[in-house]
Amino acid sequence: MGSLKKNGGAILSRIATNDHHGENSEYFDGWKSYDKDPFHHSRNPCGIIQMGLAENQLCLELIEGWIKDNPKASICTPEGVGQFGDIAIFQDYHGLKEFRQAIAHFMGKARGGRVTFDPERIVMSGGATGANETIMFCLADPGDVFLVPSPYYAAFDRDLRWRTGVEIIPVHCYSSNSFKLTVEAVEWAYKKAQESNKKVKGLILTNPSNPLGTMLDKDTLKNLVRFVTRKNIHLVVDEIYAGTVFAGENFVSVAEVVNNVDSYEVNVDLIHIVYSLSKDMGLPGFRVGIIYSYNDLVVSCARKMSSFGLVSSQTQLMLASMLSDDRFVEIFLTENSRRLKIRHEDYTSGLKKAGITCLTSNAGLFVWMDLRHLLRDRNSFESEIELWHIIIDKVKLNVSPGSSFHCTEPGWFRACFANMDDDTLHAALRRIQAFVSKNHKIVENSSDSDQIVQSNNVKKQKWKQSNLRLSFRRLYEDGLSSPGIMSPRSPLLRT
Amino acid sequence: MGSLKKNGGAILSRIATNDHHGENSEYFDGWKSYDKDPFHHSRNPCGIIQMGLAENQLCLELIEGWIKDNPKASICTPEGVGQFGDIAIFQDYHGLKEFRQAIAHFMGKARGGRVTFDPERIVMSGGATGANETIMFCLADPGDVFLVPSPYYAAFDRDLRWRTGVEIIPVHCYSSNSFKLTVEAVEWAYKKAQESNKKVKGLILTNPSNPLGTMLDKDTLKNLVRFVTRKNIHLVVDEIYAGTVFAGENFVSVAEVVNNVDSYEVNVDLIHIVYSLSKDMGLPGFRVGIIYSYNDLVVSCARKMSSFGLVSSQTQLMLASMLSDDRFVEIFLTENSRRLKIRHEDYTSGLKKAGITCLTSNAGLFVWMDLRHLLRDRNSFESEIELWHIIIDKVKLNVSPGSSFHCTEPGWFRACFANMDDDTLHAALRRIQAFVSKNHKIVENSSDSDQIVQSNNVKKQKWKQSNLRLSFRRLYEDGLSSPGIMSPRSPLLRT
Repeated sequence: MGSLKKNGGAILSRIATNDHHGENSEYFDGWKSYDKDPFHHSRNPCGIIQMGLAENQLCLELIEGWIKDNPKASICTPEGVGQFGDIAIFQDYHGLKEFRQAIAHFMGKARGGRVTFDPERIVMSGGATGANETIMFCLADPGDVFLVPSPYYAAFDRDLRWRTGVEIIPVHCYSSNSFKLTVEAVEWAYKKAQESNKKVKGLILTNPSNPLGTMLDKDTLKNLVRFVTRKNIHLVVDEIYAGTVFAGENFVSVAEVVNNVDSYEVNVDLIHIVYSLSKDMGLPGFRVGIIYSYNDLVVSCARKMSSFGLVSSQTQLMLASMLSDDRFVEIFLTENSRRLKIRHEDYTSGLKKAGITCLTSNAGLFVWMDLRHLLRDRNSFESEIELWHIIIDKVKLNVSPGSSFHCTEPGWFRACFANMDDDTLHAALRRIQAFVSKNHKIVENSSDSDQIVQSNNVKKQKWKQSNLRLSFRRLYEDGLSSPGIMSPRSPLLRT
Repeated sequence: MGSLKKNGGAILSRIATNDHHGENSEYFDGWKSYDKDPFHHSRNPCGIIQMGLAENQLCLELIEGWIKDNPKASICTPEGVGQFGDIAIFQDYHGLKEFRQAIAHFMGKARGGRVTFDPERIVMSGGATGANETIMFCLADPGDVFLVPSPYYAAFDRDLRWRTGVEIIPVHCYSSNSFKLTVEAVEWAYKKAQESNKKVKGLILTNPSNPLGTMLDKDTLKNLVRFVTRKNIHLVVDEIYAGTVFAGENFVSVAEVVNNVDSYEVNVDLIHIVYSLSKDMGLPGFRVGIIYSYNDLVVSCARKMSSFGLVSSQTQLMLASMLSDDRFVEIFLTENSRRLKIRHEDYTSGLKKAGITCLTSNAGLFVWMDLRHLLRDRNSFESEIELWHIIIDKVKLNVSPGSSFHCTEPGWFRACFANMDDDTLHAALRRIQAFVSKNHKIVENSSDSDQIVQSNNVKKQKWKQSNLRLSFRRLYEDGLSSPGIMSPRSPLLRT
């Protein structure tokens, strides 16, 4: 393999030396643990509950119902197989016209019908992953910089940078300001980047934010549009969570702002939207990524690149039919929002009982949990990772530490709540409540260095060394043995 | 738009100035003409017949039959919808285990069962397009060179080079040697590239060849494996036409050679295969691209990159089921080969009647037609393009000129024969026969320079200026009005 590092590409060498973008091996430990011991109500009730996946499973049965009622939408039913040949050979990089129209229609509806999208500007790519990479290939050269507010989606390091050579400079947001992005912070980061001779090509926003679950307010968004226009840099808004807003103000798409800002204040050639059906509809397996640009040249360039990540024509046909069904789309979006709201309230109120607060949010498939009070040292990322390992190994929840999102303050964790059923969510809450509300002692069974963690009460928690040993099962027996909080599918009831 | 050229990426600037890879605007003229005036038996019988698309439509109805018999393979049938949720959220970049197994199985079968493939080395990507780009991203850095025998697939310029920055150096093959690739030619190109200080990272073969329809013999392939091993460069074999071999010797996959060469003569870490279902099964719309590498690091790296072009999970599930059905796969491959053989014979014997010969071939979805005798100047590519325009505009066939495949000798054209029904093929043959077997004169209706083309007989044909004018309809009336050669769906019978 030695020679390969020499005669392969630079990307391969980085893979060989584990120094590659987009996959932090440390954070993958959590996934490995989950894969080895996944929770299941009956088969593995003490297993790890997956809260690291921003999946939306709350409304999939509505889609199943639609599919049953619409057999013509599939090339695999007796009613639809007559279209098989035409669809199987279809590979135009514009996509099926009906698909583009349906997607444009759905994008408008998912933004409350306050804005419309032109089907001719809809460009396909392989998921938001492919869409984000494609827009970078269009807009930037290796070494060019995009500003990205932090905390940000961990895999941006892969999607935006890995093969394009683009650099990310974070615009740091802080808890003191509820992690709100300000134009001043962007301006400061822009100036700093210029001072270090970086060529800033644009700003990427994720709105609603992953991992925060918050939205940008209209004024901030307007001012950011004005800012990029003044600086003549691009604005890419990743709106893949647009349809997950479940409370508060209306979601404001950059598409709405573009229409509402005086024309001299916005150069629409600089504005681009990334979309997908993975989050709003819960269909990540279908790999539907969309680039929507107001710039004709970017549309043309991205469309040529879509050859590298076209949506399967089988999938295009089905979605074209589904998303042009007005009644279904309206029911779906309303119900999706309603169920997310209930789930969010259910989870955050359960956390509150354990003394855990979250950043106030009204969108997304996750909350941004404040666990700073549980850190051994509030200023240390080592403490964050230590706590994270305890949460995985002892509390048996796979959540994501803030540092994996490039958060600058230790102690914040993202927990996803829409990728499981109610019983699993309640099981997770019981584990958290048990973990923080009881006096307990946990001993890690490390052969190298046995580490003992002790917590007394939520507010004055401290991790100390001791010689006490308590198995994970003991923790659960202590914390969860009250029959009152056990559902029939409790992790403690092996069925 | 002016500013955009400055503040976009280099790729965008090239698009803006029409100086981008992968899309030669001249050759796109033919497509534009076709799009404006596509042939249809009844609706547009004088329209252009599409012979520029290497599609395989000959066995699609076998697949349709299988689908009707296997409703459980789809998430869109009453029988299969129960799997909808699991499949819709599935986005693991390893792909469904059953899909990897089925693909590996099919790849073995499509190579006559003489070789097996390890499902753990199957990596997904967005079609062969994505697979070819991905393997370049793994193996090479911008500026690195891959040697590619010419004539080669036109879109390699896009797939291999466009976003990777890799350079292609052609290894020219000549008609004097039936366009056969020799190790000597590869060695010469390698030496020349090194002399100009290029870093040669590997050799890419398309076997069976597009556009030639020929296969590499076992000895040449063995010697090429030895060559790359000696030079420590990579060998990527694009085998997307493996299942289209319809006559002659068995197809020899590089997988077979790897097993049959003495181990000291082959470094398997250097050997990689690209595959797809677009040609062998006729399913380009499904975007199934496969990278199969003997190199663990490349498998790992390419798999991480497959996030940019995953196969839709809906499509994975269906194909997993279909391709693991042994009986179906055997019937399909046998019937596919049988039908391609008949079609090839039908087309080449029809051409022979018009005095046109093709390079002897036994694979692919096309023939490599020798039209050198029809050129005004046998040594001029201008003449090739002139003839090509006549074939499109007057004979109304969209074939592809050799120069679009980087062929170094003017007068060769690729004509596809598997993307149409028998009647259309016969209509095309009648047009060709009429074109070359009758004395005729064609006047191009160009306002700039009326050009008159005259042909007397096949062997001594010459294009000359004259003042005669003859409409395209007249040509057809002259050439095709014999009722004996008209089918009920003849282009001249408007129904």
